Amino acid sequence: MLEALEKYKKPLRVIIFGSHTPAGRNFDLILLVVILLSIALVMLESVAEVSNRYHDLIFIAEWIITGLFTIEYLLRIWITERPKTYILSFYGLIDFFAILPTYLELAFTGATAFGVLRAVRLLRVFRVLKLVQYIGEAKVLLYSIKSSLNKITVFLSYVIITATLIGTVMYMIEGPESGFTSIPRSIYWAVVTLTTVGYGDISPQTPLGQFLAMLLMVIGYGVIAVPTGLVTADLVKSGRKPFEEKDNRACNNCNNSVLLDAQFCHHCGAKLL
Amino acid sequence: MLEALEKYKKPLRVIIFGSHTPAGRNFDLILLVVILLSIALVMLESVAEVSNRYHDLIFIAEWIITGLFTIEYLLRIWITERPKTYILSFYGLIDFFAILPTYLELAFTGATAFGVLRAVRLLRVFRVLKLVQYIGEAKVLLYSIKSSLNKITVFLSYVIITATLIGTVMYMIEGPESGFTSIPRSIYWAVVTLTTVGYGDISPQTPLGQFLAMLLMVIGYGVIAVPTGLVTADLVKSGRKPFEEKDNRACNNCNNSVLLDAQFCHHCGAKLL
Amino acid sequence: MLEALEKYKKPLRVIIFGSHTPAGRNFDLILLVVILLSIALVMLESVAEVSNRYHDLIFIAEWIITGLFTIEYLLRIWITERPKTYILSFYGLIDFFAILPTYLELAFTGATAFGVLRAVRLLRVFRVLKLVQYIGEAKVLLYSIKSSLNKITVFLSYVIITATLIGTVMYMIEGPESGFTSIPRSIYWAVVTLTTVGYGDISPQTPLGQFLAMLLMVIGYGVIAVPTGLVTADLVKSGRKPFEEKDNRACNNCNNSVLLDAQFCHHCGAKLL
Amino acid sequence: MLEALEKYKKPLRVIIFGSHTPAGRNFDLILLVVILLSIALVMLESVAEVSNRYHDLIFIAEWIITGLFTIEYLLRIWITERPKTYILSFYGLIDFFAILPTYLELAFTGATAFGVLRAVRLLRVFRVLKLVQYIGEAKVLLYSIKSSLNKITVFLSYVIITATLIGTVMYMIEGPESGFTSIPRSIYWAVVTLTTVGYGDISPQTPLGQFLAMLLMVIGYGVIAVPTGLVTADLVKSGRKPFEEKDNRACNNCNNSVLLDAQFCHHCGAKLL
Repeated sequence: MLEALEKYKKPLRVIIFGSHTPAGRNFDLILLVVILLSIALVMLESVAEVSNRYHDLIFIAEWIITGLFTIEYLLRIWITERPKTYILSFYGLIDFFAILPTYLELAFTGATAFGVLRAVRLLRVFRVLKLVQYIGEAKVLLYSIKSSLNKITVFLSYVIITATLIGTVMYMIEGPESGFTSIPRSIYWAVVTLTTVGYGDISPQTPLGQFLAMLLMVIGYGVIAVPTGLVTADLVKSGRKPFEEKDNRACNNCNNSVLLDAQFCHHCGAKLL
Repeated sequence: MLEALEKYKKPLRVIIFGSHTPAGRNFDLILLVVILLSIALVMLESVAEVSNRYHDLIFIAEWIITGLFTIEYLLRIWITERPKTYILSFYGLIDFFAILPTYLELAFTGATAFGVLRAVRLLRVFRVLKLVQYIGEAKVLLYSIKSSLNKITVFLSYVIITATLIGTVMYMIEGPESGFTSIPRSIYWAVVTLTTVGYGDISPQTPLGQFLAMLLMVIGYGVIAVPTGLVTADLVKSGRKPFEEKDNRACNNCNNSVLLDAQFCHHCGAKLL
Repeated sequence: MLEALEKYKKPLRVIIFGSHTPAGRNFDLILLVVILLSIALVMLESVAEVSNRYHDLIFIAEWIITGLFTIEYLLRIWITERPKTYILSFYGLIDFFAILPTYLELAFTGATAFGVLRAVRLLRVFRVLKLVQYIGEAKVLLYSIKSSLNKITVFLSYVIITATLIGTVMYMIEGPESGFTSIPRSIYWAVVTLTTVGYGDISPQTPLGQFLAMLLMVIGYGVIAVPTGLVTADLVKSGRKPFEEKDNRACNNCNNSVLLDAQFCHHCGAKLL
Repeated sequence: MLEALEKYKKPLRVIIFGSHTPAGRNFDLILLVVILLSIALVMLESVAEVSNRYHDLIFIAEWIITGLFTIEYLLRIWITERPKTYILSFYGLIDFFAILPTYLELAFTGATAFGVLRAVRLLRVFRVLKLVQYIGEAKVLLYSIKSSLNKITVFLSYVIITATLIGTVMYMIEGPESGFTSIPRSIYWAVVTLTTVGYGDISPQTPLGQFLAMLLMVIGYGVIAVPTGLVTADLVKSGRKPFEEKDNRACNNCNNSVLLDAQFCHHCGAKLL
């Protein structure tokens, strides 16, 4: 029977793995919707009132989505040229772990602890995010982040060193009665302050501590303007033509970007469509 | 009697709907003041102490404003060329719903629940906001927002995806006893943190959760510098002459922007003044 | 006797009102120190523990500073060419109100309520701040703020309108039990959120309210990047040579800026030194 | 015996003080790891649960690290050309105070108060941070901060003056029952608000106070965009070639930067390797 279906393999591969044809794009869109629905389901299930009230409805929806994902998973294994490579690839594993929890719950009745693992489905979004690659703006953003990664790293080091120093000093000044119960916790407070988040779960109580906190805020804030400025200055200077169309084609098997003129994927060796 | 008044229709239309003549601009200004007063009234009414103490005063002021708005509404219906189009237009409906609640309260005595609906008057401000179009700076700002809308959307997606991922992980780590009672609530926490608002109504309590929160703050903060930089870089490059006077004329009937040389509005078909 | 002192009038005027001679600059510096000391005193007095413990010391220091300020005030009246103009000028009134509270406390014993009025001395700092005009960086900053005032105003309007709209909607959604007791209070919450301050004294409790709050944060945050970008873009384009030395001279009587070649102040008519 | 070891002095000096040879760089890397471990230890010790449970393990690790640091310290004294200069130099003192607390605890049994002084080890990180000088990005960042120091100072003054003024006014309006117990505390609140940290430990309760707080947030926020913009504008204009390789060589004795062609350190007089 499978031999009779063999002729559908190639067109299906174009639809399911590719996104260059209208059908492939439609498949990706539908998949995105189902993934988003499955994520919404995981979220709703975590809300106690909803999961108590609509228990049966969620249970049914859960199985429908798991069914669809299972069919898709098996199809992918069947139509790909190198099933092993797909199964062990990043996306292959995510596809597998997205359906596993529901079956585990069936096997070990009442093992709701597996339920939360369904959140791995979130990562499936990235499979369809290759769609986003077609939106120019996202590419600019991603490119900018990549090109200013060094600066962000330096900025990060600056925050870590400052937070560690100030956090330790605050631990000595304030002590446990103000919530600064340990150095790591004081560092947590320093990061919360330096990034201007400011939960207020820990806050200095002594005048000296408040004075130091003020210094941290004002100086920290002033200095933080610098990396922001650096990133912007870079973007202004560099212009915005850093994109070649070459990295725009994704492998139909492992989803990594391949060269435009490639015949085979240089990541997994699959024949490109 | 109405026939005798017919000759006032056209000049009134220029004053009430138009804003190109001094009289029209003055009318808009007075209307703006009355709208702002009516909004202030709605606000004051919501303050328990004020509404208890000055109950009668507010009641009278409410009816004066409703009276003025009713007269204006009827005038607009009478003088417009296509009353139906006006009544069903966006601004027509807002004008109607701005006076409805007060009459509803009269009909169903004590039905104060309608009172809060008066807040729809806020939207009336936008009718007069076409005035703002004449302030150059607002135009630059609006244009900039429009031209960087794509980037803001990408930025938004970035925030949503990051918040969803981190929120779910935090839900698993922290659990209900720290306030992370459900995934949507954890995502709410992640957004509050990522945008550096930091209410502190929910905050991580476990060391692992605090460590992850620190990562979210520092990396999130560093990456957020990028869209800010992109918007700035765009503004620096694009220059600031993107405004043609063409879209500066508003229809005297439906208030949408029309072409400068148009004889009729291409939105509602009304003859332009 | 005063006649004999008449010859000291002009040199004293150069020292006390002017800041172009070394002596004048030194006088300003000493004055700045005394003003800062007097401010520190007002602050310390407001701290209950300090004012209880060092009551007598603060009392003595208070009178020494008041004495110095009184002498300076009388000197200024004596040496100025138009005493009336000085007394009624902005700085003349501040100089007067800086010493008044201490004398009032003497007249009405125990009237400590006047004490807090001493804070008006803070404004005296601005008299000496003309010193700051000589620091180039401050001038660039002030100039930049002035030139981007329009944009900041538009930004302000944007914040006010958004905060009013969202605040009203949140008042309807959340209601008094979440702390949204009135529309003005809800607007206060919206501003606290939109500017990413986030005290957490009021925070949404219902899922719908939290969802709206998330929208406010993310969109508000994204849009806020635009005015920041506009200001920067302006600064990049405008270059930094907008300062002429002309407005750098201050009147020795009323402290307003005067033209470099002026013989008389065009604000108060005093003869310039 | 020491004489026999004399021949190892010079090569050791190159390894321990220098960072130009591979061996020197490896030594610095190992030192960095040990310093980071010792910092982690100080942090863990401050966490009550950990220090109670793993008391013995921490005690042993503490002595191993103190041992290593002592050996390193003695080695440094022995191999340096001018031991006195090294001992009294900034890094020499830090090296000494990094090992002192552990010995003090041994001398005065149970004197755990000294333990927290170990945090001085954090400063040892800076000794190895000269490594960071080789990462170009950090140099750009440091240079930018240095070149915009003036602007950051002006920005700081702006924050201080605004915070002082608003803080004093809020103290008068709100009073102790809202947490504004003294003027310094009110200023602390103003800084927390102006930098958008917003702990919420103190927040205005009266309508007037909340209105003033809103003003502070919106205007403060709008104005804060200006220094950020100035820094960026400067960076865009200045280009990025401000680095000469000259200040890249550090003295092998006192760690200060020396000229590339120098034979002796112009800070401590040590012969350069």
